[in-house]
Amino acid sequence: MSDAVGEADLRRLSGVARVYRSWRMNQKSIDDVLPDVDALVVFFWPSQITAEALSKMGRLRFVQSLLVGVNHVPFQMLDSRVLVASNAGAYSLEVGEHAWALVLAAAKNVVSQDIRILRGAKSVKEFAGEASKNIVLEGKTFGILGYGGIGRSTERYAKAFGMRVLRFGRRGRGVLKGRQGLERVLREGDAILLSLPLTRKTAKIVSSKELSIMKDKAILVNVARGDLVDQVALYSHLESHPDFKYATDAWWFKGGLETLETDHPLIALSNFVGTPHMSGPTGVLSGLPGKLAVDNVMRYLRGERPLHLVNRSEYEAGP
Amino acid sequence: MSDAVGEADLRRLSGVARVYRSWRMNQKSIDDVLPDVDALVVFFWPSQITAEALSKMGRLRFVQSLLVGVNHVPFQMLDSRVLVASNAGAYSLEVGEHAWALVLAAAKNVVSQDIRILRGAKSVKEFAGEASKNIVLEGKTFGILGYGGIGRSTERYAKAFGMRVLRFGRRGRGVLKGRQGLERVLREGDAILLSLPLTRKTAKIVSSKELSIMKDKAILVNVARGDLVDQVALYSHLESHPDFKYATDAWWFKGGLETLETDHPLIALSNFVGTPHMSGPTGVLSGLPGKLAVDNVMRYLRGERPLHLVNRSEYEAGP
Repeated sequence: MSDAVGEADLRRLSGVARVYRSWRMNQKSIDDVLPDVDALVVFFWPSQITAEALSKMGRLRFVQSLLVGVNHVPFQMLDSRVLVASNAGAYSLEVGEHAWALVLAAAKNVVSQDIRILRGAKSVKEFAGEASKNIVLEGKTFGILGYGGIGRSTERYAKAFGMRVLRFGRRGRGVLKGRQGLERVLREGDAILLSLPLTRKTAKIVSSKELSIMKDKAILVNVARGDLVDQVALYSHLESHPDFKYATDAWWFKGGLETLETDHPLIALSNFVGTPHMSGPTGVLSGLPGKLAVDNVMRYLRGERPLHLVNRSEYEAGP
Repeated sequence: MSDAVGEADLRRLSGVARVYRSWRMNQKSIDDVLPDVDALVVFFWPSQITAEALSKMGRLRFVQSLLVGVNHVPFQMLDSRVLVASNAGAYSLEVGEHAWALVLAAAKNVVSQDIRILRGAKSVKEFAGEASKNIVLEGKTFGILGYGGIGRSTERYAKAFGMRVLRFGRRGRGVLKGRQGLERVLREGDAILLSLPLTRKTAKIVSSKELSIMKDKAILVNVARGDLVDQVALYSHLESHPDFKYATDAWWFKGGLETLETDHPLIALSNFVGTPHMSGPTGVLSGLPGKLAVDNVMRYLRGERPLHLVNRSEYEAGP
């Protein structure tokens, strides 16, 4: 059990199962209980649960992620009988609000203008010719790539701002699908949200070709995973398209860890806006991720089918 | 006539009046027509229209401002028979969007975090303990000080974000009034918008006492005029209340001109966000301000009562 679950939910689960609080245990006591563990609740993947530890967990059949994305789960090391569940919907509100903050910050050039004032711009008149660089959202098109809980939150905001909404996803009514659907959203969107899971299929789903389809003044917002976007292609596109903007809360992985250090100096570009992956942690504080995760583990323990099981083949490396 | 009015509206007005395009005229030809002018349409106050020029404008009876705020009009120099009209509502959409960009930028610390990454923050973990500093808007209270067109725009956004809305103004149903009403909004608001006109009564309406009433983690957004806020009191409050945030598109006047140069180094504070008065100019591009101004001048020329006449006594210096 991860320490990101609140006391009330831990007590609830303790009523139906023996709960081991791994952050209070040393490696020896963890090793002792490994053979008894039926289910794991993880935030980031716990460093104590190595390949060797997993080989001793003969009863493990269920992994509940506290995060929505499960790309951090070492699927190759898990027995094929282990089910893995996402925590879909647990952060929709907080991540949705953060996404809209990034859409508006990019649309109104809030960060780049604040920095210019910080660096010494003295006169309102210096900016007088740049009003056309501020994007008015009313009447424009908002594209959602990955229409889940976060997509639904932001759709509500987009409609209040008088925007038309295009949705891209794998299922559902009114959702554009397949390569054609993806390209339509890229072509028509004035602001586009990336809220897709990072899988083998979606890695670098936005690369040079996709960027070239987008409008020159489009805004691309990422609240999912950095690696959905090809960093090299993005850097080159931002350099050659000064009115195109990328605003992100998600950063690229290096050696399995998300890091603010990029291969290219993206943060120095005035059309790049970055926050240090704060949207999820803000959501953790609501307690909802822990509650939903415990709900789902209890569902599993009662013999019901857990919600949000992921298709493992989409995450495991191919042959 | 100001050059901020589009060709179509100029043509429309030319059908019923002789229109002088001051930006195409030299001082001599301006001087020649001064005695014939019945009405002025101004953006900023034109430098050619000095006290001396006004003394020659015996027929002048109407001044239409292209801006919503009329605090730039030299009321003391105008004959007492001159009516002055604001351009209320002309920028509600663009300024409303900008206001919400500032609310969210402050709530999610977008600017201060981007700057920390720009200055070299390398790890997502450096920020891990700061999630509680991100304000979740859902369920919180949005206070509007000055409930006009901009207030109504932002109210729509606030409701989409699941916020309770408190309105303060001079008239209207469901609008809190007077000192008691003002203090209630200050006390209960989690995010508060300043969208008041700058008059003798509202200058420094937010000073140390008002700041002290507000919540420690409140967000104050100003899209109206810098001088609604006492700069010294604000600087001191931001320094002593690191979780309080001020985000502004409006700056203080110096020698009658709005300037980004402040008496105190506000822009260097991480809880201060500033954009260089871009919301209005973004609205000018829509053409609506010129259209509404010409509509109102035509109303005046037809002998109807123009809309949005201001109470001159609120702007003129007292005895």
